[in-house]
Amino acid sequence: MIVGAKINMSEKVVSTIKTISIEAIDKAKSGHPGIALSSACSLNTLYTKFINVTSMNPKWFNRDRFILAAGHGSSILYTILHLANFNISIEDIKNLRQLNSITPGHPEVETPGVDATSGPLGQGIAEGIGMQIAESYLASKFNKSDLVLVDHYTYVLCGDGDLQEGVTLEAISLAGHLNIQKLIVLYDSNDVQLDGYVEEVNTENTKLKFISCGWKYIKVDNGENSLEIERAINKAKKENGPVIIEIKNKIGKGSSLEGNPKSHGAPLPSDDVIKFREELGGEKFEICSEVYQEYKDTLIRRGNAKYKKWLKTLKIYASKYPNDYKEFLNVLENKPIVDFDNLIKFDKTYNKATRFASGDIFKAISRIDPYFIGGAADLSSSTQGEIEGGRYTKDNRGGRNIYFGVREHAMNAIANGIALHQGLRVFISGFFVFSDYMKPAMRLSALMKLPLIYHFSHDSIAVGEDGPTHQPVEQISMLRCIPNFNVIRPCDANETIEAFKVAYNSTKTPTCIVCTRQGVRNLDIEHKNLSKGAYIVKRETEELKLIIITAGSETALVLDSLELLENKSIRVVNMPSSYLFDLTSDKYKESILPKNVRKRMVVEMSDCLPYYKYLGMDGYVYGVNTFGKSANIDVIIKEFGFSKDQLLKVIIKYLNKED
Amino acid sequence: MIVGAKINMSEKVVSTIKTISIEAIDKAKSGHPGIALSSACSLNTLYTKFINVTSMNPKWFNRDRFILAAGHGSSILYTILHLANFNISIEDIKNLRQLNSITPGHPEVETPGVDATSGPLGQGIAEGIGMQIAESYLASKFNKSDLVLVDHYTYVLCGDGDLQEGVTLEAISLAGHLNIQKLIVLYDSNDVQLDGYVEEVNTENTKLKFISCGWKYIKVDNGENSLEIERAINKAKKENGPVIIEIKNKIGKGSSLEGNPKSHGAPLPSDDVIKFREELGGEKFEICSEVYQEYKDTLIRRGNAKYKKWLKTLKIYASKYPNDYKEFLNVLENKPIVDFDNLIKFDKTYNKATRFASGDIFKAISRIDPYFIGGAADLSSSTQGEIEGGRYTKDNRGGRNIYFGVREHAMNAIANGIALHQGLRVFISGFFVFSDYMKPAMRLSALMKLPLIYHFSHDSIAVGEDGPTHQPVEQISMLRCIPNFNVIRPCDANETIEAFKVAYNSTKTPTCIVCTRQGVRNLDIEHKNLSKGAYIVKRETEELKLIIITAGSETALVLDSLELLENKSIRVVNMPSSYLFDLTSDKYKESILPKNVRKRMVVEMSDCLPYYKYLGMDGYVYGVNTFGKSANIDVIIKEFGFSKDQLLKVIIKYLNKED
Repeated sequence: MIVGAKINMSEKVVSTIKTISIEAIDKAKSGHPGIALSSACSLNTLYTKFINVTSMNPKWFNRDRFILAAGHGSSILYTILHLANFNISIEDIKNLRQLNSITPGHPEVETPGVDATSGPLGQGIAEGIGMQIAESYLASKFNKSDLVLVDHYTYVLCGDGDLQEGVTLEAISLAGHLNIQKLIVLYDSNDVQLDGYVEEVNTENTKLKFISCGWKYIKVDNGENSLEIERAINKAKKENGPVIIEIKNKIGKGSSLEGNPKSHGAPLPSDDVIKFREELGGEKFEICSEVYQEYKDTLIRRGNAKYKKWLKTLKIYASKYPNDYKEFLNVLENKPIVDFDNLIKFDKTYNKATRFASGDIFKAISRIDPYFIGGAADLSSSTQGEIEGGRYTKDNRGGRNIYFGVREHAMNAIANGIALHQGLRVFISGFFVFSDYMKPAMRLSALMKLPLIYHFSHDSIAVGEDGPTHQPVEQISMLRCIPNFNVIRPCDANETIEAFKVAYNSTKTPTCIVCTRQGVRNLDIEHKNLSKGAYIVKRETEELKLIIITAGSETALVLDSLELLENKSIRVVNMPSSYLFDLTSDKYKESILPKNVRKRMVVEMSDCLPYYKYLGMDGYVYGVNTFGKSANIDVIIKEFGFSKDQLLKVIIKYLNKED
Repeated sequence: MIVGAKINMSEKVVSTIKTISIEAIDKAKSGHPGIALSSACSLNTLYTKFINVTSMNPKWFNRDRFILAAGHGSSILYTILHLANFNISIEDIKNLRQLNSITPGHPEVETPGVDATSGPLGQGIAEGIGMQIAESYLASKFNKSDLVLVDHYTYVLCGDGDLQEGVTLEAISLAGHLNIQKLIVLYDSNDVQLDGYVEEVNTENTKLKFISCGWKYIKVDNGENSLEIERAINKAKKENGPVIIEIKNKIGKGSSLEGNPKSHGAPLPSDDVIKFREELGGEKFEICSEVYQEYKDTLIRRGNAKYKKWLKTLKIYASKYPNDYKEFLNVLENKPIVDFDNLIKFDKTYNKATRFASGDIFKAISRIDPYFIGGAADLSSSTQGEIEGGRYTKDNRGGRNIYFGVREHAMNAIANGIALHQGLRVFISGFFVFSDYMKPAMRLSALMKLPLIYHFSHDSIAVGEDGPTHQPVEQISMLRCIPNFNVIRPCDANETIEAFKVAYNSTKTPTCIVCTRQGVRNLDIEHKNLSKGAYIVKRETEELKLIIITAGSETALVLDSLELLENKSIRVVNMPSSYLFDLTSDKYKESILPKNVRKRMVVEMSDCLPYYKYLGMDGYVYGVNTFGKSANIDVIIKEFGFSKDQLLKVIIKYLNKED
């Protein structure tokens, strides 16, 4: 009977995937066999029956996306990608979790066929939403009634832990509200998490919860039954809006630790590994030709065919819609199309807050670049993080302002998903102090080398009356310490343009632009020097005795203070970005901060610990290392010693201090 | 008719509260009138009819707790606390949002009658859960069948934004699972948030969502009807488990901006303020005697009576259960009862990871102190953050291990609530890299001066195979930059004891103990010096030429490396806590890090930016400023240059470098 034969073949494939996975974990002496065994059948069904990808072009723009939210299931994903003919060899799988292998402990986006780095729980579903926001937006831009270029699914596999994380819960609520299409979450519901049984920490009604958030819910009772899984996914594809499929299974399925929390995070007893192989037959790490053939007959054939068809469609599109085609090619490359040198200028009388300047810049960029998208977490009217092009809603997929609600963390994870998708530049906006809520997703954007544009306003204690809960102090330091993360605090409106120029043109580094709430005057300085991270904005005219390093609104403050002082031996260095400064040559660094000048001072209304790097032991940090206070801006600035007169006194005192 | 008269009186009281609140906002030229007007009736009903507090003792241990999760409604709370005879005068209310006033922009716990600092959305409900965990645990410890000492409610008022935050959503799920009692959330459902209408960002079914999480849901259709609100709260008090009461109202109710997002975050048009006062009668900021009388007849009379009755109960308790009474007094004072010098010792052969040492210490503390409580976010079996005394569950309120599930952020916010409650010492435990998920609540613990014990394991790239997503790099810097936050990285098992000693005895500062995943040998050093933050663990015997500053597992590494070197001019400083070191005298600092020695080096397998403070410009950071990699620990340590031999080479090279 053919149907029966097929089922048997499918079982053999699943058994192979399981065996290879636990053999790899066994060899690595480290890994997560539990989810590998419980999700192998689901993932195999998904890949063989549904996912359209092709090793002919692993980054094919219209491929289905897949995110292994439960990143600890990496060994399964690598095995399937190997079968799918992606550039992951059996040797690579044997190198699971080894240095510089393409099969690290948790999936990393650099590995062919991996669409997102995962591991920190809760991020994956939100990223999937971002991918489908990108998909739907680009579909609205490019698809024609007769020719469809963008039309793919995003699948996510998550575990129990993912659904407990706040970022997921925020994202679920928003996805339901936006009625995100073609997003299917497979939930490996295996009853166990690291510390024990799920029922010991979570007894909510999953179905009801998702339904309350506007999702469709489908249940698969037997996670080892690929036909049941296939039916569920087929059903999901017919639904309107986001769908979760809860697939019941046992963690460590088929092993001696089936259903046992001990199977979660350590290799199985070697007897188990041997047993799996014995039942399957063959040598360690061996995959029989029928299994390869199964993937050739399913995923590979289907994926390659889809890809070739798409190329054909693209060709017709090129001749029928040559202008759109050209634009589409630009989108494929994420080509920058904004000329910041001629985008917008603020004249010398401009003295509004840099958040207002950034609002104008946002709008100017969006008028030129229709592939610039983003939004704020219920604060756009305050941060000015809003662009032209209307709102992205369930009825308007061509809108470009995403209203995230008070969901900062999901906002960031969703933006990561948009950036991962490719084709769009994405910004997110909020109050600087609430960057705290986004830290896990910020780290991932830096780790995945996603050039997100982070836009924050209300940058210091100068926030004023809202008080210490709303006044950032240590946030700037927190972000300056993240690897591959560029923090820019522009000092005025025109430097804000330069900050956006850097952010917009970045290809591998997220950029964080931190703006003021309060007005700052436009300075008569060489703003273009921002590209070097730090530059001189007031040069000494006599022998250099003191260097003052500053940024943001404090640059004008320092310059204004010095106006009151007859001293020609002070240099003021505006340092909007230590990240960029660190990238400059030693020669340039020496020209700005000559080593022999040890009298150095940093002036910033925030924690300044990371800036000791430029100060040395004789240096002097004039910052804020306590929490703020609730008071009017002028009062608060005085309270913390940042009025012109106060600062001047401090400078004079330090200048005259004996070495 | 008496009933009618009562309603009219209640209306007058509400009208007074509204008027005073918007007058205060008007005077401050800053504030949030929208929620003040929509929640005044709810809050007045809650305080006059239900909340048991007393100005005779604002910190009365068995008072009902109240958290204004939507902290921007502060003006209403201050006005009610004024009426309730707390030490907030009309002058204080006139000083709303002024420097050093007790009426700051968002409520701060230092103000009499304020139970939690609030403002950052989403924290309040989780804190309320923590308060009721504390209440139920202490009730299980002290209440007798005939005498009840601990038996209070916690009420929370939240807005639409709170319910969108992930931390709230995590907390809701856990509260339902734990079936938290006597927790009543009033949800000011006013249809508007900062950027616009709620329906534009959130269309989930609130009722269904809460029910799916095991909550009871009650709806009040008219938020201006105090009788309806009173009925709802009465009903809620009869329910089993946590309850949310959705109270429908219009933002800015009664003003010209009723229902308008513009009423959210800026003073109302002055005509509105004048209109409210005209309708009420009297002068600006005037409160008529009947309104004061109403509070005297309700809240004040009831609260004082309850308090006096409790004192009487306590007296009987003292004579009937003298030992328990003594213990209760200790609990009231949060009295430390652990003698760390005689608690536990690890001998010189101990070479397990500091996470295992901390596991033993946790258990030792808990054997002595029954008021030590806490838990982990699904990682206790790995971090060893577990104590004796069983699990806290819905059926066992006397358990002390809270299994938070994968809900790091809620874990921290709940722990803040436990600490705010008073009576218990609380710890939370997790992987260090996932401290990222907790940052907003960490900041609040520091801001509120809550002596939480943060326990993290897996402290560096030495995490190994799990790779960059699981290897902390910048986390240590992130936390070192928070004001009033003590980060300790103990170097071995015995120093871990000292770290716990500091953490346990802290009264106003959260302490974060960061432990290794891998084994470290116990060092022959003066561990007690940890209290000074930094101390010499290898002293030069010739003229001092180089100071090496290090911490954690790297201390042994540095010492071991130097074993291979014949050099008597090197000093090694173990610096587990820069926070504590900064608190020492200049003289002590000079004795450890003499200013004239400029050749200094920091060795830490993490980002070290904040440590430039101790290095100077001639100093040398030997740390990690990229993301980690997936590989076995020995391989990863070598890859990043932290093997003994590699480090030795680096030290020699730096030592011999020309100045």
